[in-house]
Amino acid sequence: MTGDPAGSPPPRPRGRPRSDAADTAILAAARELLATDGVAGAGMEQVARRAGVSKVTVYRRWSSKEALLAAAFESAGAGLPARTLDGGGDPPSSYDGLTYSEMARLIDDALPTAADALADPQYRALLAAVFGARSTHPGLLAVFWEHHVLPRRRTALVLLERATAEGHLPAGTDVEALLDMTVGALVYRLLQPGEIDRDELLAYLRRVYRQAGLIPPS
Amino acid sequence: MTGDPAGSPPPRPRGRPRSDAADTAILAAARELLATDGVAGAGMEQVARRAGVSKVTVYRRWSSKEALLAAAFESAGAGLPARTLDGGGDPPSSYDGLTYSEMARLIDDALPTAADALADPQYRALLAAVFGARSTHPGLLAVFWEHHVLPRRRTALVLLERATAEGHLPAGTDVEALLDMTVGALVYRLLQPGEIDRDELLAYLRRVYRQAGLIPPS
Repeated sequence: MTGDPAGSPPPRPRGRPRSDAADTAILAAARELLATDGVAGAGMEQVARRAGVSKVTVYRRWSSKEALLAAAFESAGAGLPARTLDGGGDPPSSYDGLTYSEMARLIDDALPTAADALADPQYRALLAAVFGARSTHPGLLAVFWEHHVLPRRRTALVLLERATAEGHLPAGTDVEALLDMTVGALVYRLLQPGEIDRDELLAYLRRVYRQAGLIPPS
Repeated sequence: MTGDPAGSPPPRPRGRPRSDAADTAILAAARELLATDGVAGAGMEQVARRAGVSKVTVYRRWSSKEALLAAAFESAGAGLPARTLDGGGDPPSSYDGLTYSEMARLIDDALPTAADALADPQYRALLAAVFGARSTHPGLLAVFWEHHVLPRRRTALVLLERATAEGHLPAGTDVEALLDMTVGALVYRLLQPGEIDRDELLAYLRRVYRQAGLIPPS
């Protein structure tokens, strides 16, 4: 996750020093296989072969297929907001003291970069593969949810609660429902058939965020 | 689809008279295999074997795996709103002349039955399998989208446009964005890890529909 200063994918159980080049190759191979062949085709052995490293090298770094594929997914999200807005801590302390309008502008400013990342066909394929693994590989979905989704969700809820408290969203706004509606619309759009180009997705993001009241009317 | 008077799943290219008992067994077998083993494990041969019929019987009725699995998905949705609210036609003529409040009450009344259908772990597994087949079986996602999603989407848009025209939703409401947010929140919830019981899902549906302005505040 480039937005995360620590640069560390979530599950890192092993203590051994790592080779950045090998890690990069392994994660790229895992992304490619997961996107094209699904979870079933992205085993430790296939990933090692495609990355040109030994299986032991992969296992030294990631103890399970679930951990590897979750890290591969996370590595695809360059351009997405960090798990917490200041890259650590919860709630996001670096956003303390900003007004809602300032936060809304920051959100609006972040949308083009997010659209770049999300419109990538590989990102969409990875998202579908992870959700689609629900029955066959529930551990992957669980790791993805815990490490990729929930930390970002906690951050977003803090922002929405603040926006409501400051009167920028109507009193009585159900912030959890509103968050699910915003993220849900995006996930739903990305899972649809067919291509979507970056500009179309950016326009879509703006429509949804505007309808949600998270950025001002155009 | 029980809500559809014609009783016919969308792709039915073959003209031969059908055996209802065989169809029922084939669709049940396809649902089971798709839910547990994903698209890769739900081939025509495996479905025929589990249903106790010949492969020829399956092919007589459904010309492709995509058509069969799309019909299997549709057959799982008993309790969901029909593809159009009056079971045919577009826009839904039987809803003409209803006020927004009357429509909102009908929507509210339909939610418990929808929650029954959607909280079914098999339905959630099927949904994940279909979205997850994006890369490996794009034809299935395309058929599902065309026959399951788009007709319901057209119906819902008519209702939202009417609600906006009658002043029940704020002027300037982006009805397409609002629809994606509502359906998206639901899909997103169903794709999450873990179980959800029917009452919890019903409460969730009500929160989202309320936040969307589609049913009145509690």
